[in-house]
Amino acid sequence: MKIIDNPDRDLWLELIKRPSKNPFELEILVKEIFEDIHKNGDSAVLKYARKFEKAEPKALKISKDQLEKSHEKVVPELQKAIQLAKSNISKFHEAQSGTINEIETTEGVVCWRESRAIEKVGIYIPGGSAPLFSTILMLGIPAKIAGCDEIVLCTPTDENGEINPVILYTANLVGISSVYGIGGIQAIAALVFGTETIAKVDKIFGPGNQYVTAAKQMAQQYGTAIDMPAGPSEVLVIADQTCVPAFVAADLLSQAEHGEDSQVILLTDNEEVRTLILKELEIQVEALPRKDVTRKALENSKAILLSSISECMQFSNFYAPEHLILAFENSRNLIDIITNAGSVFLGNYSCESAGDYASGTNHTLPTNGYARNYSGVSLDSFVKKITFQELSSTGIENLGPAIELMAEAEQLFAHKNAVSLRLAQIKNNTSSRN
Amino acid sequence: MKIIDNPDRDLWLELIKRPSKNPFELEILVKEIFEDIHKNGDSAVLKYARKFEKAEPKALKISKDQLEKSHEKVVPELQKAIQLAKSNISKFHEAQSGTINEIETTEGVVCWRESRAIEKVGIYIPGGSAPLFSTILMLGIPAKIAGCDEIVLCTPTDENGEINPVILYTANLVGISSVYGIGGIQAIAALVFGTETIAKVDKIFGPGNQYVTAAKQMAQQYGTAIDMPAGPSEVLVIADQTCVPAFVAADLLSQAEHGEDSQVILLTDNEEVRTLILKELEIQVEALPRKDVTRKALENSKAILLSSISECMQFSNFYAPEHLILAFENSRNLIDIITNAGSVFLGNYSCESAGDYASGTNHTLPTNGYARNYSGVSLDSFVKKITFQELSSTGIENLGPAIELMAEAEQLFAHKNAVSLRLAQIKNNTSSRN
Repeated sequence: MKIIDNPDRDLWLELIKRPSKNPFELEILVKEIFEDIHKNGDSAVLKYARKFEKAEPKALKISKDQLEKSHEKVVPELQKAIQLAKSNISKFHEAQSGTINEIETTEGVVCWRESRAIEKVGIYIPGGSAPLFSTILMLGIPAKIAGCDEIVLCTPTDENGEINPVILYTANLVGISSVYGIGGIQAIAALVFGTETIAKVDKIFGPGNQYVTAAKQMAQQYGTAIDMPAGPSEVLVIADQTCVPAFVAADLLSQAEHGEDSQVILLTDNEEVRTLILKELEIQVEALPRKDVTRKALENSKAILLSSISECMQFSNFYAPEHLILAFENSRNLIDIITNAGSVFLGNYSCESAGDYASGTNHTLPTNGYARNYSGVSLDSFVKKITFQELSSTGIENLGPAIELMAEAEQLFAHKNAVSLRLAQIKNNTSSRN
Repeated sequence: MKIIDNPDRDLWLELIKRPSKNPFELEILVKEIFEDIHKNGDSAVLKYARKFEKAEPKALKISKDQLEKSHEKVVPELQKAIQLAKSNISKFHEAQSGTINEIETTEGVVCWRESRAIEKVGIYIPGGSAPLFSTILMLGIPAKIAGCDEIVLCTPTDENGEINPVILYTANLVGISSVYGIGGIQAIAALVFGTETIAKVDKIFGPGNQYVTAAKQMAQQYGTAIDMPAGPSEVLVIADQTCVPAFVAADLLSQAEHGEDSQVILLTDNEEVRTLILKELEIQVEALPRKDVTRKALENSKAILLSSISECMQFSNFYAPEHLILAFENSRNLIDIITNAGSVFLGNYSCESAGDYASGTNHTLPTNGYARNYSGVSLDSFVKKITFQELSSTGIENLGPAIELMAEAEQLFAHKNAVSLRLAQIKNNTSSRN
């Protein structure tokens, strides 16, 4: 890790920088694949699967039977662990559904909001050596609680054209409607346009490599919403003398192992603590199967000494980390100071792995500084909130004259007339009754 | 209006189509201006103002004095109307701030969410003949309630380099931090990168023409969030024999007057009612100052007869209108059927103008079918929701073994280790106490 001591404020802007990517780099490739799949459907999807994934799915759509039998290939202990995680994630996300709150803003004018599920959603799960089933929990569970009609999942197959049983088990457990064995740009394009086999969706969720990320950006141009812009995963840990150095080291490593471009930042007000953490880091990294990747990520990471925990909190807000760990006792006292973060882990026992898998919070979070302007995925991500209003005759009498004046000032006379006609009718009714 | 009778379901997809735009049409122009302003700041902003707006602002930033004195040029009645609207919009949006709800998902594992304001937001208000001050209320008020630190407003000046006093009055009333006399692509680029004078923001809100829309799309590529994708404004009215035809006609016209590309749809189960509404439409349109634009919009609009109100509701959900007016008695009984809409107006006295100006609901709403996957602007649009979690030693003991199993199944051994170390320490502590 890079050791930095009490950097000047002028340097902070440099210190919070993530490796930047040219957002337009893949645009031409993505546009080409999108247009081809829009025109040629499944056959184009399969063409790109063969080209990019070097694999052809045994079946584009996984059969219901295969989904239902998937538990046979998952050891019972892992099934139970996944079920515990499901229970916690369900509890936390169910608590996010608000109640309907009718507000009478003026006598006779009642306004409120109601949630409605986004009807069709797509979930993307990356391929690779490890089956990232935990992300199915994080996206499928709130989609189901929201009441989405159709929840489809795309994930690339392995070289034999198959999908890992744990992926299928988790998909079946949370109630995914359909699973397609397809990944990459072609999967996103299929979800945007729909094909003979794959359903078009209204919103796409889930992580992916730079190709998937570029395709999700492009999806927005065609009217499909996405969860949030993506970047490499990151953690920022603030530690003081009450931390447990071995725990902090383990938390830094559990971020660093994600990939060479992972971002890991340690802030502390105590030089001795930093030394202890770095020493622990060296010991622990040696034991990791992914130590080469992890070491690469650590090379770009920073261990920064600042004058106080308060200054650490300021730096963290400026950095806007995806994950923020406050590795000290009584950390609850400082949470009001937090302005920008995706998810926060308080105290020495709240490791990031807990939130990644099973505490109940969502692990799909804003990276790359997007914690400044985006929330992580929640139940809200799967619904629209529709506003309603009902005016009685008293309501329009109370508001009407003000609306007439404002509409006239904006030179929108038909807007004014819609009110004037109603006010005239009410006046007529009243006088005809008298 | 185009008269359509009982169209087959196969035709619905055609009937809900909005005029489509090529999303990439303006990309090269927008990218060029963005790069120039990124590099050259204010001088480039002013260059494009002269080029595109044929106007140079007297001052790029409006002085505090000018803002505070703006009320002198606004008649007191209009001031009062704007204040009434402000009061209602404030009441409705204040009620949207939820309470913090701590959930113990497993014994010793507590999770909750807290809202934090997006620190810097930008509001764009279009220019043109009419001062669209109502949008300042709709965006400035929730930004203020959310607690945004900096709320900046960009709007093009008139040919004399000045901004309409009602715009300045409303901006001052709601507490906008800074007003800049600049519009178009150059305004959006300035908000994305910041210049010597104009503040860089985290999220941009507000309507605009196709140039502003393209620039807001591009803003996302540079990490700035936007409120939602935009398209021409639209209303869908469902009317039965209990409607007041003159009111329905007025509501259709108040949408049509926005511009030639406005979308206006009438659905009814009653042919006679349709005839009466169209007759009223002909009478009322004649009296409008903007009757030419309004007639053009009506040419592309549709008056569709369907078999029942229930079928009308199904069509509406399929269309996903920005504004939905249920112009009949007892319309509340049907709102559970609504799945896609921006804002809904119930009964004969709830005209769209009420929501446009003063009922309290927000008028920045999803158009172009985006009501399928986006909500309108609300207090939520100005905050991030950060998740928090705190695990006690009991909490990690309860969850730890499940996390270890799942991390191992995802081949993330450092994730597992972060838990194992904590479990080992707790076990040691317990045994050393015994």
